[in-house]
Amino acid sequence: MCELLGMNANVPTDIRFSFAALARRGGATGPHRDGWGIAFYEGRGARMFHDPQPSAQSEIARLLRDYPLKSEIVIAHVRRANRGRVGLENTHPFTREIWGRAITFAHNGQLKGVKKLPLGLYQPIGTTDSEHAFCWIADRLRARFDTLPTPSALDRALHELCNELAGHGVLNVLMSDGRTLYAFCTKKLFYIVREAPFGVATLIDEDLRMDFSKETGPHDRVAVIASNPLTRDEVWRELPLGKLSAFRNGALV
Amino acid sequence: MCELLGMNANVPTDIRFSFAALARRGGATGPHRDGWGIAFYEGRGARMFHDPQPSAQSEIARLLRDYPLKSEIVIAHVRRANRGRVGLENTHPFTREIWGRAITFAHNGQLKGVKKLPLGLYQPIGTTDSEHAFCWIADRLRARFDTLPTPSALDRALHELCNELAGHGVLNVLMSDGRTLYAFCTKKLFYIVREAPFGVATLIDEDLRMDFSKETGPHDRVAVIASNPLTRDEVWRELPLGKLSAFRNGALV
Repeated sequence: MCELLGMNANVPTDIRFSFAALARRGGATGPHRDGWGIAFYEGRGARMFHDPQPSAQSEIARLLRDYPLKSEIVIAHVRRANRGRVGLENTHPFTREIWGRAITFAHNGQLKGVKKLPLGLYQPIGTTDSEHAFCWIADRLRARFDTLPTPSALDRALHELCNELAGHGVLNVLMSDGRTLYAFCTKKLFYIVREAPFGVATLIDEDLRMDFSKETGPHDRVAVIASNPLTRDEVWRELPLGKLSAFRNGALV
Repeated sequence: MCELLGMNANVPTDIRFSFAALARRGGATGPHRDGWGIAFYEGRGARMFHDPQPSAQSEIARLLRDYPLKSEIVIAHVRRANRGRVGLENTHPFTREIWGRAITFAHNGQLKGVKKLPLGLYQPIGTTDSEHAFCWIADRLRARFDTLPTPSALDRALHELCNELAGHGVLNVLMSDGRTLYAFCTKKLFYIVREAPFGVATLIDEDLRMDFSKETGPHDRVAVIASNPLTRDEVWRELPLGKLSAFRNGALV
């Protein structure tokens, strides 16, 4: 299994606090030591960092814990390999350009028989089930829409495609086109929306506290999604199973 | 204009010495302050770092100067914007998956009218001429070959496509499919092949010397390609104009 972390905010927001917890789970407080990756959207571009090293010991992860990159949408993943060797090409998030957009995808779960699904334009670079599933989604989206669809049309299409894929096993997914952060889960994903009045939170995985009221403006709103709650003193809610959840402007639509 | 740096080696090789020089040219010893990027191939995967900050001041560039990432093929670029705003989506190298391979592309020069070239499957995410040209190449390659061609077939196809593009202006390009490092130039690209007996070299842009004999094995061979020579005490040769140069296993094929 693996762990996922997603963030969507209505203003460019620093994810270092949450990433610190996830990074610890990659080989320190959790067993997900087989590489990690993160995508930060900035406008239409996405900055990606991938490393086959455990995130708890990674120099690149250390940089990201120290260096404030602000983004409205972030997707991160720490990997515990089950299908596909430990290597750069098998670290999530995966990315493809569709309709002139950088689309990113990270997955937790095992999908039985998914590699038998036929692919067309988009082909996996690595050997994971997850990347195969992503290429299948990309192909189907491309076949359905010639150009970038409206957010609500994309919401509906992804809901259908994820439900079809979920027939193959466990499908906990974070995905984005740079406008919306999508979450789909068949097993477990938690989320929290932070907004005014902001409080104080303490990480579970590390002795780190954050007073969000000092870091935010009165209209900021930030949704964080994670495989397991990251803080001990906030209420994390479970996302509904078998349903696509779309986050825009820091809120569940 | 921009500056390019490429490396191809027959063993995974550390590019920090050469990258130190290029990074200085992004806002310190050179005017290319409008962002930078680098791709490191590792097996079939490619690690990419992009930053719209000047490389001479970038925290991420500083990490890469300190942290030894070894790779057989590297492509790096420091940008001085002429077409397309300064932003993450306009930083090179650009990448697309073709035939299940991560293909990367970095360009220096201006291409007049290139945005009128029709595109199909591959669409630009940013607004540079360079990314449009890359998408055009990707489309044409995909139309010509259903699956990954042999290296020599790809050499021939790229030579033709680059010559066609060069009709639009200045085309100094580094490109790779993870097997071959391609260089094409219509104006200026220099290269050097380092092999035993290895000597000592000193950067032009910084007071940094390297004794390669201490860092290499007797059979190592490393080709470095750059827009301008990086060292003051080695002989850099110019690549032929209007011809695709293919580097494999650290040598010009």
